[in-house]
Amino acid sequence: MRIIIDAMGGDKAPEAPLLGAAEAIKEYGVEITAVGNEAAIAAVMQKNNIPAGTFAIVHAPDVIDMEEDATDILRKKPDSSLAVAMRLLAEGAGDALVSAGNTGALLVGATMIVKRIKGIKRAAIGMLLPGRPTPWLLIDCGANVECRPEQLVQFGAMGSAYMQKVQGIASPRVGLVNNGTEESKGTALQQAAYPLLQQSGLDFIGNLEARHAPEGVADVIVTDGFTGNAMLKMLEGAARLFTGMLKEMFYSSTKTKLAALLSKGALDDFRKQLDYTEYGGAPLLGVQKPVIKAHGSSNGNAVKNAIRQATLCVENDLPGTIAAWLKQYKAAQTETDGDDE
Amino acid sequence: MRIIIDAMGGDKAPEAPLLGAAEAIKEYGVEITAVGNEAAIAAVMQKNNIPAGTFAIVHAPDVIDMEEDATDILRKKPDSSLAVAMRLLAEGAGDALVSAGNTGALLVGATMIVKRIKGIKRAAIGMLLPGRPTPWLLIDCGANVECRPEQLVQFGAMGSAYMQKVQGIASPRVGLVNNGTEESKGTALQQAAYPLLQQSGLDFIGNLEARHAPEGVADVIVTDGFTGNAMLKMLEGAARLFTGMLKEMFYSSTKTKLAALLSKGALDDFRKQLDYTEYGGAPLLGVQKPVIKAHGSSNGNAVKNAIRQATLCVENDLPGTIAAWLKQYKAAQTETDGDDE
Repeated sequence: MRIIIDAMGGDKAPEAPLLGAAEAIKEYGVEITAVGNEAAIAAVMQKNNIPAGTFAIVHAPDVIDMEEDATDILRKKPDSSLAVAMRLLAEGAGDALVSAGNTGALLVGATMIVKRIKGIKRAAIGMLLPGRPTPWLLIDCGANVECRPEQLVQFGAMGSAYMQKVQGIASPRVGLVNNGTEESKGTALQQAAYPLLQQSGLDFIGNLEARHAPEGVADVIVTDGFTGNAMLKMLEGAARLFTGMLKEMFYSSTKTKLAALLSKGALDDFRKQLDYTEYGGAPLLGVQKPVIKAHGSSNGNAVKNAIRQATLCVENDLPGTIAAWLKQYKAAQTETDGDDE
Repeated sequence: MRIIIDAMGGDKAPEAPLLGAAEAIKEYGVEITAVGNEAAIAAVMQKNNIPAGTFAIVHAPDVIDMEEDATDILRKKPDSSLAVAMRLLAEGAGDALVSAGNTGALLVGATMIVKRIKGIKRAAIGMLLPGRPTPWLLIDCGANVECRPEQLVQFGAMGSAYMQKVQGIASPRVGLVNNGTEESKGTALQQAAYPLLQQSGLDFIGNLEARHAPEGVADVIVTDGFTGNAMLKMLEGAARLFTGMLKEMFYSSTKTKLAALLSKGALDDFRKQLDYTEYGGAPLLGVQKPVIKAHGSSNGNAVKNAIRQATLCVENDLPGTIAAWLKQYKAAQTETDGDDE
């Protein structure tokens, strides 16, 4: 198996992607193609004593910045590491792609160059988020701010395929984010998506309120990209607020300072559990080959975890699983209403 | 000043509303009219040694359950404590209303019986939420799942009036929830609302992502009721997740158990800061008289706090402030585009 790495993507590039890649080769026995500025890659390899020949290197002179507007970035920067990496993936020079770079550009590149699975309306971003007792996949986290009901069903199916194939959950439960549990709740979007999800063949458990999302009530939590982005960012803001408040609490007296010392290791674990970058990268779902978006601030370890995710997607044929569901769904629809799209 | 209390609303009714009311009379010198089942009220007063004559009592034989569908509940239950209280408020038998009951019924009642301020398209629910360094008002928290751009501007104005008159912030900063800060971000709703907010005369700081909401970047954070509800519920879910994880962390070893003991008081403060019921009730904004929705689980102290909020709304003429803004806004619009609605 060969994973393509965008060596220039992310706040800590090219060091973090290359260190992560070198570790992944050792741990998982994968082959890696690193795409980026050759000189920069060579410098990192030398500095970190990574032997020549550890990865295949494909030179790409240009870099897409984290904040650049993605719309036509691939046309403007065809020689960027991201664009070159995407073309390599599309051409079959690798089985999956990992990048910690610009999310928008990654999404546009995946859609325009690697292409969507036939029948999938829009690619979507999933994120595995912390919950008790189990993590949950939020989809869509912001790729599609305006959605049609049919797309939400596809998000549910893509999320289910991911949780099944990568997280090993036999029959993932799918919930729809709404402002109450009754079937009639929500905007026109949720009202129309509800019966479609019921008839989708997925294990649809109905509507759920965001407050129950971290309580293990569903494995896949479906929403439009605008709401999903707001939920994801609210969770992130809440985590920062709480850790800030907790720190302040521990600094408030001599007694609490002692308490902080006594609970240091456990507190670090607590912070880690809050940090969703620990849960690996975000899969871009619905494209023909696995693409994993590692967090922009990823260190080598986070990139290594994202590579592991990518290998699981390849090994378990995630795109094929999604395509197979879609075929079955279309067939069932045709049977039901005679409407062969 | 006379505050009308729905004595039967909330999980701990009628005890909590009446205890809160009795405390509020002592602390703030307000007059209270308690609406509800006379016998039940008398029993609570006797049990808690509340002297006869402490409040005016208006009998209402019926109760609206917390989970009942609100749409036509007031027509079906015209003798419920909530419907009777609303009519008393509309007729001028009191200056403001506090209820810990069914939010939907409260909203329908306020809109149908007390009526909206002239020119206000929809009433909205604001919630003061925890932030560092300052709390923030999220509006709308779920009253209007589908919104038009003009409504978001009105939410901004109503939220500003509240933060100014009740929280004492001279010039509240208003931010629009979006999936990025650029003006072009969001769905058609946010894209259309952005220029309207810019021209609104409010202190509009632009778009913000939900992750920054708790960081004191804006005093009033505006969004449609669907997204607002998802954010509010996500924050609530996150708080539960974090306190659960923290508890587990403290139980993990003898050292951490000792740490928990050492930080007990500070931990309680931490939990309190997370608990938004501590921030008082949620104002229903846009109706002709102040209506405060106390949390369903309110105890006496929370009801007392909600009564204090109601008195501040009355003292500082919150509805009049909103009406005055609207008049000025309409006049400015007429000047600009000659379109006198």
